[in-house]
Amino acid sequence: MPTLNAVLSTIDGRRDQAVAALSEFLRIPSVSTNPEHKQDMIRCATWLSDQLKFGGLDVAIMPTAGGHPVVVAKNKHQPGRPTVLLYGHYDVQPPEPLELWTTGAFEPTVRKDDTGHDALFARGAVDDKGQVWCHVEAILAWQANGGLPVNLTVLVEGEEEIGSEHLEAFVKQHADQLRADIAVVSDTNQFARGVPAITYGLRGLAYMEVTVTGPSHDLHSGLYGGAVPNPGNVLARLIASLHDAQGRVNVPGFYEDVTPLSPQERTQWRSLPFTEKEFAVSVGLSEGTGEEGYTSLERKWARPTCDVNGITTGYQGPGAKTVIPSKASAKISMRLVPNQDPAKIVAGFERAMRERAPKNVTVAVTCHSHTPGIVVPIEGDAMRLAAEAMEIGFGKKPALMREGGSIPVVNLFKRVLGVDTLLLGFGLPDDRVHSPNEKFDLDALHNGARTAGALYEKLAQLKK
Amino acid sequence: MPTLNAVLSTIDGRRDQAVAALSEFLRIPSVSTNPEHKQDMIRCATWLSDQLKFGGLDVAIMPTAGGHPVVVAKNKHQPGRPTVLLYGHYDVQPPEPLELWTTGAFEPTVRKDDTGHDALFARGAVDDKGQVWCHVEAILAWQANGGLPVNLTVLVEGEEEIGSEHLEAFVKQHADQLRADIAVVSDTNQFARGVPAITYGLRGLAYMEVTVTGPSHDLHSGLYGGAVPNPGNVLARLIASLHDAQGRVNVPGFYEDVTPLSPQERTQWRSLPFTEKEFAVSVGLSEGTGEEGYTSLERKWARPTCDVNGITTGYQGPGAKTVIPSKASAKISMRLVPNQDPAKIVAGFERAMRERAPKNVTVAVTCHSHTPGIVVPIEGDAMRLAAEAMEIGFGKKPALMREGGSIPVVNLFKRVLGVDTLLLGFGLPDDRVHSPNEKFDLDALHNGARTAGALYEKLAQLKK
Repeated sequence: MPTLNAVLSTIDGRRDQAVAALSEFLRIPSVSTNPEHKQDMIRCATWLSDQLKFGGLDVAIMPTAGGHPVVVAKNKHQPGRPTVLLYGHYDVQPPEPLELWTTGAFEPTVRKDDTGHDALFARGAVDDKGQVWCHVEAILAWQANGGLPVNLTVLVEGEEEIGSEHLEAFVKQHADQLRADIAVVSDTNQFARGVPAITYGLRGLAYMEVTVTGPSHDLHSGLYGGAVPNPGNVLARLIASLHDAQGRVNVPGFYEDVTPLSPQERTQWRSLPFTEKEFAVSVGLSEGTGEEGYTSLERKWARPTCDVNGITTGYQGPGAKTVIPSKASAKISMRLVPNQDPAKIVAGFERAMRERAPKNVTVAVTCHSHTPGIVVPIEGDAMRLAAEAMEIGFGKKPALMREGGSIPVVNLFKRVLGVDTLLLGFGLPDDRVHSPNEKFDLDALHNGARTAGALYEKLAQLKK
Repeated sequence: MPTLNAVLSTIDGRRDQAVAALSEFLRIPSVSTNPEHKQDMIRCATWLSDQLKFGGLDVAIMPTAGGHPVVVAKNKHQPGRPTVLLYGHYDVQPPEPLELWTTGAFEPTVRKDDTGHDALFARGAVDDKGQVWCHVEAILAWQANGGLPVNLTVLVEGEEEIGSEHLEAFVKQHADQLRADIAVVSDTNQFARGVPAITYGLRGLAYMEVTVTGPSHDLHSGLYGGAVPNPGNVLARLIASLHDAQGRVNVPGFYEDVTPLSPQERTQWRSLPFTEKEFAVSVGLSEGTGEEGYTSLERKWARPTCDVNGITTGYQGPGAKTVIPSKASAKISMRLVPNQDPAKIVAGFERAMRERAPKNVTVAVTCHSHTPGIVVPIEGDAMRLAAEAMEIGFGKKPALMREGGSIPVVNLFKRVLGVDTLLLGFGLPDDRVHSPNEKFDLDALHNGARTAGALYEKLAQLKK
């Protein structure tokens, strides 16, 4: 592998440039959910587009139907070579609460993390700009060494953090341009520091909002309390009704279609270096909680959930206000596992909320987005080649794992393009994705870039 | 009653001036809870003090220990006359949400209410500036007709809407100056338009805040969901646990000391012009809700409650954020009835919240304020004289009623000064106290002033 060695050597020689470039990427506050950042989104797509041009790709910043643009880039595709579709996203979660950041969310800073390792801290560091950057490093390194050995199509969208609202229409519209033999997504984690991993399963998501309206206006709790339905109390009862005493989700039919964990998977996961105590301590808890009869890994990777993401009602300022609120609302999302049908779950949830509420309040239920859980086949050439690339990148054979998050694009690519996805993630579990002080480990950045460099060499062997 | 007729005639001649003066009072945004209005509080106390001087009273704006000042005013007390202690408050609730006001909260406007009657709309219109103004009109009218026939001490505080935090210390410190034979508070309602009433019972209040802390920081709901306690879900279960299926409050010992309603009271209340349907419709509901076995009047006046006043946790903006919040908190208040011990209720609530929460979350419970429910004797001279005054003021014998709100000062006066209180309220049930579009009916303003004018004449007959 003389060329690959040269590619890895180029990557090794750019460690400082990689951090500097990623810092530029991170300094652009590409918060997709906030209309105030609309110009930043365009600036971010343009910046990324420039870097991909340095890698010898033809790049287009393509509009979506009313949403943020998609960056699409290609090398010169040659007949007979396998085609790889690389997906990532350049948008990030909102940085709030700002006061909890040690250094600014959009002022990327290299410093030691809690375990004493160097990391780059910023919103989007690992989700997903840092992981996109691993691939850009690989593309640049191949460009310096004669060009990529595969046909590559890069698709980096700007709406992942808001449910990829316009991506499906975009992929359908441009399906011919996007056809590929394999898709690659780097938006997941290693199992732990020193335990690189390939992810073969993801949970789905059904994100709901429930609003309870009682009296037509806020009422004085003294003058009316006890004689009218209080939407705050009603909403609390509705949310409480979503779990039974065993921690199972109490929505009719919720578990009906769930594929049970195989004994093989349970055994394999028990061999991973994981302790319940360390897991709990890592998030500041004395112990975890969840569905009875399952370990924390099983709960996170293979069991469906129902979690409050936000509740708002009544007076929230300092001190006291004796008010019975007219409205109360909650954002509630369910993580789904393979074989659960999101539409059926959404309908069951909605019906349960309506049926369980008293007749003298109004319940409005909306679904922000839904996507199914998936498991990709762990046998086959692509997975084997990816594992070999990861071993080159990290110096260790990767573990096989599932992950609890959702990447709807994996399902979208399968449905629309008929293509399977490799999930090669370089993050660490303590990277504080979506939280203040998000970071990306500098070794992960480097080894991720090496893995990506090796991956393109390996995937060149993929049969068409 | 030649003098009283002259007093009433003076009041009748000042209808426009009364509205103009009250409008000036209402234009001052004396929001006690908001530090930004500190200067407005002083301006409001000063304005009121000036008006009381026109009534021939000696006035002092007296500081409290770190809180808003109290306005204290007296006529020249003469030996042998009964002494009346008049209490009111010049502070108001916050006006938010501002967008729901038809005309500005601090731009008092006379217009028709929903039933076609003229009313003055502004924050504080009825609670309590308008009702204080009824008494100022009476004082001015007596001043124009030879002076008040009783010894009067006026105490108007600026912290009623924030729990009268400094009032107890103030009353204790100035007890000698405040001693009286009877106290008068106008901060309650008529039973309905055309049904003036004297209130003989009030509920108490225990206002609590509960905060549940789970993980040490916000977590990604995909990566962690199902394996960690979600403070939003836990808080919802805690709130749901506060009622049983019969709508009774599920706090240990909650009903233990409750004085049951007497058959006489239940019978008398059933004779009041009240229908469940009209009550429900007046607040935009198809029907009321509450403790089984009681009418809405009984639920509001004589049964204790537990209501959510506010909940906050997680993401509350538009769209979706897949977060497991680190914290969730709720403001929850209980209305108490006579013979319930607030300290015991607070302790029971706190213990219930702690015991019902799972062990791997932290529960913090604080009490913002508490005060007991009260019933004042309905026999006796003061009540009879007040009823006669109200009949003169409104042209109709008043009904006897209780009310669901809390006026802690009634208990404070009894404990510290040993004095009973007359509750003569002029508001209407649809005045939207604490809500947008608060108002005071112009007829109520006028008849309230007449009632106050007659009251001082009547109370002159009170035996010392």
